[in-house]
Amino acid sequence: MPIPAHLSPAIPEFDLPRIVIVGGGFAGLNLAKKLRKTNAQVVLLDKNNFQTFQPLLYQVATAGLEPDSIAGPLRKTFEGNPNHFFRMVKVKGINTSSNEVETTVGNLSYDYLVLANGSVTNYFNKKDFRPKVLPLKRVVHALDVRSHILQNFEQAVMTEDHKEFEKMMNLVVVGGGPTGVEVSGALAELKRFILPKDYPDLDFSKMNIHLIEGSGRLLNGMSDFAGRESLKYLQKMGIDVQLNTFVEDYDGDTVTLNSGKIETATVIWSAGVRGNVVDGLADSSVERSRILVDDFNRVKGLENVFAIGDVAMMQNEDYPNGHPMVAPVAMQQGRHLGQNLKNLISKKPLDPFKYFDKGSMATIGKNKAVVDMPNGMHFKGFFAWLIWMFVHIMYLIGFRNKLITLNNWIWSYFTYDKGTRLIIRTFNRKFIRRPVAVNKN
Amino acid sequence: MPIPAHLSPAIPEFDLPRIVIVGGGFAGLNLAKKLRKTNAQVVLLDKNNFQTFQPLLYQVATAGLEPDSIAGPLRKTFEGNPNHFFRMVKVKGINTSSNEVETTVGNLSYDYLVLANGSVTNYFNKKDFRPKVLPLKRVVHALDVRSHILQNFEQAVMTEDHKEFEKMMNLVVVGGGPTGVEVSGALAELKRFILPKDYPDLDFSKMNIHLIEGSGRLLNGMSDFAGRESLKYLQKMGIDVQLNTFVEDYDGDTVTLNSGKIETATVIWSAGVRGNVVDGLADSSVERSRILVDDFNRVKGLENVFAIGDVAMMQNEDYPNGHPMVAPVAMQQGRHLGQNLKNLISKKPLDPFKYFDKGSMATIGKNKAVVDMPNGMHFKGFFAWLIWMFVHIMYLIGFRNKLITLNNWIWSYFTYDKGTRLIIRTFNRKFIRRPVAVNKN
Repeated sequence: MPIPAHLSPAIPEFDLPRIVIVGGGFAGLNLAKKLRKTNAQVVLLDKNNFQTFQPLLYQVATAGLEPDSIAGPLRKTFEGNPNHFFRMVKVKGINTSSNEVETTVGNLSYDYLVLANGSVTNYFNKKDFRPKVLPLKRVVHALDVRSHILQNFEQAVMTEDHKEFEKMMNLVVVGGGPTGVEVSGALAELKRFILPKDYPDLDFSKMNIHLIEGSGRLLNGMSDFAGRESLKYLQKMGIDVQLNTFVEDYDGDTVTLNSGKIETATVIWSAGVRGNVVDGLADSSVERSRILVDDFNRVKGLENVFAIGDVAMMQNEDYPNGHPMVAPVAMQQGRHLGQNLKNLISKKPLDPFKYFDKGSMATIGKNKAVVDMPNGMHFKGFFAWLIWMFVHIMYLIGFRNKLITLNNWIWSYFTYDKGTRLIIRTFNRKFIRRPVAVNKN
Repeated sequence: MPIPAHLSPAIPEFDLPRIVIVGGGFAGLNLAKKLRKTNAQVVLLDKNNFQTFQPLLYQVATAGLEPDSIAGPLRKTFEGNPNHFFRMVKVKGINTSSNEVETTVGNLSYDYLVLANGSVTNYFNKKDFRPKVLPLKRVVHALDVRSHILQNFEQAVMTEDHKEFEKMMNLVVVGGGPTGVEVSGALAELKRFILPKDYPDLDFSKMNIHLIEGSGRLLNGMSDFAGRESLKYLQKMGIDVQLNTFVEDYDGDTVTLNSGKIETATVIWSAGVRGNVVDGLADSSVERSRILVDDFNRVKGLENVFAIGDVAMMQNEDYPNGHPMVAPVAMQQGRHLGQNLKNLISKKPLDPFKYFDKGSMATIGKNKAVVDMPNGMHFKGFFAWLIWMFVHIMYLIGFRNKLITLNNWIWSYFTYDKGTRLIIRTFNRKFIRRPVAVNKN
């Protein structure tokens, strides 16, 4: 197999089959771990050098955690595996006839290719306001949200224009899924415990948090119980939840809903995600922005290309529209495909994937959470919140991150304080969304 | 006194004298703390909403600490002081005849003005290469250095051009003061303990760290002993220390020294600082980029304007060229001026400032440091290193930061690991120094 110049140095074992994994998220990383000590060369490609623990991004956005605590350096995972390689590159497309991945620094051939590049924010073709809203899908997004919100209050303190003031005190969250619910809850806690102490010259009774959801309920992926109870929690915390409501437009000053208008400088966009489908696949293998795969995660119509995690759509009796785009599916598919690739290499038969649903949960501020158990049971409240914390600490990458995060949570719990209120990404209002070039001095 | 529109809301006490402090560093913050419960209105202006603990910036730059751990939110310091106000603005200049500070959002009048805006990186008029080198004076600089260095190695893995490879494996640190010495030591530790595990495909015997110092010794502000021992430490760690050497030019690829050339993509510029003198002062009150003050920190020729910290130059018998530009002087002058302003307001006589030198220290990697005691004694080694850690933890802002930093240090000590190896500020090499606009998706 020819080795392309820019990707070849130190990829020496030409006689092993090469497995290329695109994306180092929950799916790709669990696959790579499973492939340790396999008789194959594993090359992981990602545009970042770290994995993001997305379920806690909202805590970075609301000044509760440092970005470093919810990200794990990818190379650390690969330590001590001489046949494993990481390359920080952006994938431009794939060529399934020549078996090559096209990257920003050259092409890389593969024997087996695994597409695990997850999902991206779904703007539902609303291209006009896309640059004006704040997504919450990556570490830099979370830092943007944090800096943006805090900077708004710094400016609200100094304005005498009542309309400008109103815009800065109104926060709109779009989308009532887990991210939207969790970020709204965290904002309500900032409003109650932190901001009045930090800004004694602002009247926080004038701060409004609006949560906009298109369907008739919150947390659509969870039980009716979870949807109902999370709504109660949020309303009790003073959040204006608007169900059956759509965003029609946002010009940077005014959100136009199907039911009215809200003046705001801040729209957090957590309305949904879509599969991050790479260029070079046949149209017939893509449906609703996800890649169609069989029970073995093999891409429809291809022999040696697989897709796992958010980007994959495996349709079966239990999941006619594919599995939910959540971390547990990605982790399980990663590990499962790892075993199947081992079988493939040693010419053993493949096992079909079966999702083991361990339940799901969401937290809504201190002491409050909702949990759906796989047996159909649900519960809420303090115990649910403890479970939520335990599970999230368990799945965080690395012992250091677990330790620092636990420290931060214990600290916040007893002091009602949040430590990381730094504005390090400055926006220029007059306005906003145009990051100011950071002065070198 | 007229209250300017943009700065006025919620600055209600018009009958109290107003003290305006420019800059929330060691000097300004200690002054503000001292002025709690004073019969005056205190307004602190800073372009950031946090204080940076600059002595530990180098640990952020070398992946040892999160930026959040070495920064303290300024508003937190002001909690519970109804006469204290913080405004996040950039100061453009001062008008000493109308007693006004000009800011980016309007003018603010003062009864007493204190200039505490510290120092900025000194490029010694080398304007050509200023955008090509990496300063290390602010939080964003430290994040830039971290991302830049890690990204270099990611690219070194993929290049087959030997000249490019050499550039990426060579690191040049300019300036043998505390920052230059400490960052060089930390880089040597990354090279020894962390990078070979992260990049098994790179040969780190080819990584070279060069420390360039213009004078004939290191740590010029400290004793001969400290200079000599830190040199021995650094050389033992494999660092190429070049004394009596000047940087003449840097074009982004090659550093030209008076003694030769080094091919490198990375020049960390810690060659010195100069006072951050605000516009609007008479030329006669500024000398070598610092503001001339009398024994009471009063600016030469002005009655109600003071300067403290790095930007102030108080010349007396003990310090004919002013005090060293270090944190302890700034803290002591801040507290001292606080007392003097109280005296002034209650018409009591002022006390002259006298610097109490508590000694100085620098660390050079794990278990190694040099300490100068105020009594003229010096020592080095493990005990010096413990003292260094203790003092730095003590002075960190806030209990949370102390706790998280201590955690990180204990963790690194036993695991030889550093946790925060994230590339979150991407540079484009073809390269470098041009931050890539961060993709919104």
